[in-house]
Amino acid sequence: MSRAVVLLSGGLDSATTLAMAVDQGYDCYCLSFEYGQSHNTEVRYASTLATSLGAKEHRIANIDIGAFGGSALTDDAIEVPDYEAHDNEIPVTYVPARNTVFLSYALGWAEVLGASEIFIGVNAVDYSGYPDCRPEFIEAFQNLANVATRAGLEEKPITIQTPLINLSKDEIIKVGTELGVDFASTVSCYRLDTNGRACARCDSCVIRKEGFAKAELPDPTVYVTQALS
Amino acid sequence: MSRAVVLLSGGLDSATTLAMAVDQGYDCYCLSFEYGQSHNTEVRYASTLATSLGAKEHRIANIDIGAFGGSALTDDAIEVPDYEAHDNEIPVTYVPARNTVFLSYALGWAEVLGASEIFIGVNAVDYSGYPDCRPEFIEAFQNLANVATRAGLEEKPITIQTPLINLSKDEIIKVGTELGVDFASTVSCYRLDTNGRACARCDSCVIRKEGFAKAELPDPTVYVTQALS
Repeated sequence: MSRAVVLLSGGLDSATTLAMAVDQGYDCYCLSFEYGQSHNTEVRYASTLATSLGAKEHRIANIDIGAFGGSALTDDAIEVPDYEAHDNEIPVTYVPARNTVFLSYALGWAEVLGASEIFIGVNAVDYSGYPDCRPEFIEAFQNLANVATRAGLEEKPITIQTPLINLSKDEIIKVGTELGVDFASTVSCYRLDTNGRACARCDSCVIRKEGFAKAELPDPTVYVTQALS
Repeated sequence: MSRAVVLLSGGLDSATTLAMAVDQGYDCYCLSFEYGQSHNTEVRYASTLATSLGAKEHRIANIDIGAFGGSALTDDAIEVPDYEAHDNEIPVTYVPARNTVFLSYALGWAEVLGASEIFIGVNAVDYSGYPDCRPEFIEAFQNLANVATRAGLEEKPITIQTPLINLSKDEIIKVGTELGVDFASTVSCYRLDTNGRACARCDSCVIRKEGFAKAELPDPTVYVTQALS
């Protein structure tokens, strides 16, 4: 069996990506990060998902990128705003170089494992306008991986797989549902309340809600507008 | 004044690189890593160098790449060998994706600081044959940086500067000496003894010793062959 490193945030996209990699027959080694994110409960969701979807191993790396600040997701002084259309503007929830750092770690682990693939659930359709989610970024990282590693020099480069890149959010939800992803075990909200309920108004919540609506599938997310059970 | 992020390991090359960046008029923000390296006293040397060479700030990021193993520098089970000519073989001291991870962090911090440059002391002449020290690697990372960041999208890409890339070790030592680097405050050895003396036989020691000899400058390194003072 070929090995794959799968970046797993605990969100809907990376859960579906993991399910797709498992479905394609890879032995999956999942990697999550504690990077100073205010919404770091997502890492607990990632652990649950890794187990339920059949990963071989799940590692959580503690990394310091939050210490640099510069993002509403890592700096308490910057508020996560309600959803708005961004056009070409990059939102304040953008974390500088986050996917570059995540993929770099994945590359190192893939090299040690002898993995042939790295899966990342980036999506360029229903997304927040981050520069490091675009196909150009992935292509540039692939070119880097080809020259950065022992595997690359030995002409067995590690391939960056982005199975969601051209899917809309409702399509991702449909694929995940077919593959048995329990979306109640995924979290998207950037500002969960202390009871773990999603705000329903940040970018991430709005895109998720609209995805379930368009897919005509039940949305298992617990929102703040719902009473606690 | 323009800002620059400078990767500072505590070795001879990065110390000279910092001195060059300061000499070129940049406000320098130095970045070092605790990555599980067995020779992590180098980080203390880095702090001393940052101060003595006039850096504006020095940060030490704790990162988890050592946890993946796969290198003699991070895995006690793999011994650091004596020097040998490598031809095209990658030595066991290679740390998978290390410079990719380091540059990714530097990119994130540079973006937050509004820095225009990242300096890294990679060298493709007298080096250990690591894939991520070659000009092809730096060029690929530059291409990645251009698309990975807000700065790149706004057409003010962050430039990766490698002032040592084409210098031999003796040339680096001469330049550093001219710029006032105190090489006694730098460390290169991969297997210092408990008294901080260099082994004189690992790749890093042999390349360093030959550099001082060829530069016809006194080598301030304390080797295990010397008595403790």
